[in-house]
Amino acid sequence: MSTTTNQPDGIKLYTYFRSSASYRVRIALNLKGLPFESIPVHLLRDGGAQHSVDYARLNTTQLVPTLVDGAMTTGQSLAIIEYLDEVYREPPLMPAKSAGRARVRALSQSIACEIHPLNNLRVLQYLEHELKIDEAAKAKWYRHWITLGFTALELMLENSPETGEFCHGNRPTMADCCLIPQIANSRRFDTPLGAFPRIRRIEAACLALSEFQRAAPENQPDAV
Amino acid sequence: MSTTTNQPDGIKLYTYFRSSASYRVRIALNLKGLPFESIPVHLLRDGGAQHSVDYARLNTTQLVPTLVDGAMTTGQSLAIIEYLDEVYREPPLMPAKSAGRARVRALSQSIACEIHPLNNLRVLQYLEHELKIDEAAKAKWYRHWITLGFTALELMLENSPETGEFCHGNRPTMADCCLIPQIANSRRFDTPLGAFPRIRRIEAACLALSEFQRAAPENQPDAV
Repeated sequence: MSTTTNQPDGIKLYTYFRSSASYRVRIALNLKGLPFESIPVHLLRDGGAQHSVDYARLNTTQLVPTLVDGAMTTGQSLAIIEYLDEVYREPPLMPAKSAGRARVRALSQSIACEIHPLNNLRVLQYLEHELKIDEAAKAKWYRHWITLGFTALELMLENSPETGEFCHGNRPTMADCCLIPQIANSRRFDTPLGAFPRIRRIEAACLALSEFQRAAPENQPDAV
Repeated sequence: MSTTTNQPDGIKLYTYFRSSASYRVRIALNLKGLPFESIPVHLLRDGGAQHSVDYARLNTTQLVPTLVDGAMTTGQSLAIIEYLDEVYREPPLMPAKSAGRARVRALSQSIACEIHPLNNLRVLQYLEHELKIDEAAKAKWYRHWITLGFTALELMLENSPETGEFCHGNRPTMADCCLIPQIANSRRFDTPLGAFPRIRRIEAACLALSEFQRAAPENQPDAV
C-alpha cells in the first residue's frame, strides 16, 4: 500500500502519542505509505506545549495534530486526511462515488463531531477544574458519549450493504482511521463494547494491519 | 447563484429551525439554488421527535439534519454540504485547489468539531439533568467554548492572505455556512463578539445575501 502519485517534500506531523486525532492521521499516513517526521507536542507537561507561543502561531486552535507538507500547513485531522487523499492518491482512503464519500464522511464525523469533542483533554479539564466534577462522574460522562455514539455507529454499519470487512467496503477508509483511535480511547476508560459486534469485528480487521499497528499510541517515539 | 449541472429529484431536508447544523445545510442549499422540502423535526416537544422510531431508522444518530436526495440519505451537515458540492457543482462551495480545500475544511471543522458539539442540545441537557449544573454555569460553559473557538478562528482569518470578503476568498464557501449559524448561537447566549472584528465583518457580508437570510431560524416554517 505504498504507491503514491506524488512524492512528499518532507511531511511533518505535530503529534502526541495519546491524541486520538493525531492517531487518525498517523494511520492515514501509514496507509498511504508516506514517510513523515513526528514532532511531539506534550499535551500535559508544564501546562501543555500546545499552548506555547510557537505552537499557537502554527495552529491557532492550540490542538494537535498539525500537518506541514511543503508550503501547506493545516490542523484538523479530517481536513488533513482528505488533503492527503487528494494529493497522494494511492491507495484511496475515500470511495470514488459521491454517495459513498458522503457515507464515509458521515461515519467519520459521527466520531469526530459527536463523540471525540466531548471527551477531549480540555473538556475533561474543564469538567474537573471549573465544574468540580469528581472522577466517577467524569468517567461516566466519558463512557456516556462513547456508548451513545457507538450505538449510532453500530446501527449505521448494520443497516448498510456498503459495510464490508472495513467500515466501507473491503479496504480501509477515513472512517476506519477515525474508528480505531476512538476504540482505543473507549478501552482506556473501560467502556463496555459487548453491544457492538460490527465495530469489534472491524477493529480486528484493522489491527491485523501493520499500518494501524505502527500508528498506535504505545508505538510512538513520545510514548510514556 | 442558481446554475446547477444536475437537477435534483426532490431533495428533502429533515430540519429544526434552531438547529445550527440544519442551518448550515439550508444555507448551502440556498447558495446552490436547489429547491428542497423542509420536514420539521421538533427537538424539544414530547422528549424530542429526533428520538422517534421513524426518525432513528432514517438517522441512527438521532440528530438533525438528514438529507434525502433520491436514493441517497445521509446525516452530518459537513458530509451533506460536500455531497451537494460534488453533485450540484455550481456555484462551488469548496476551492478548486487541495490546499484551499484543506483550509476551508479546517475552518469548518474548527466550528463543527470544536465549538458546536460542546453546546449541542443533548450536552446542555446532560449538564443540567445529570451534572445538576445551574443556569449561570451552563451559560458560562456555552460562552467558554464559543470564545475559545472564535479566538482560534479569528486568528486563522487574520493570519491568512486567503481570507477575503468571506472566510476564504470573495465567494461564500462551506466555512461561511458553518460560521453564520455559530454566530447566531453566540448571540442567543449573549456572547461578547467585540474581540472578533474579522468574524463580524464576514457575518455582515453573509447576512447581506438572501441565501443566508432565507436560511435563518426565524424564517423557517417551523419557527416558534
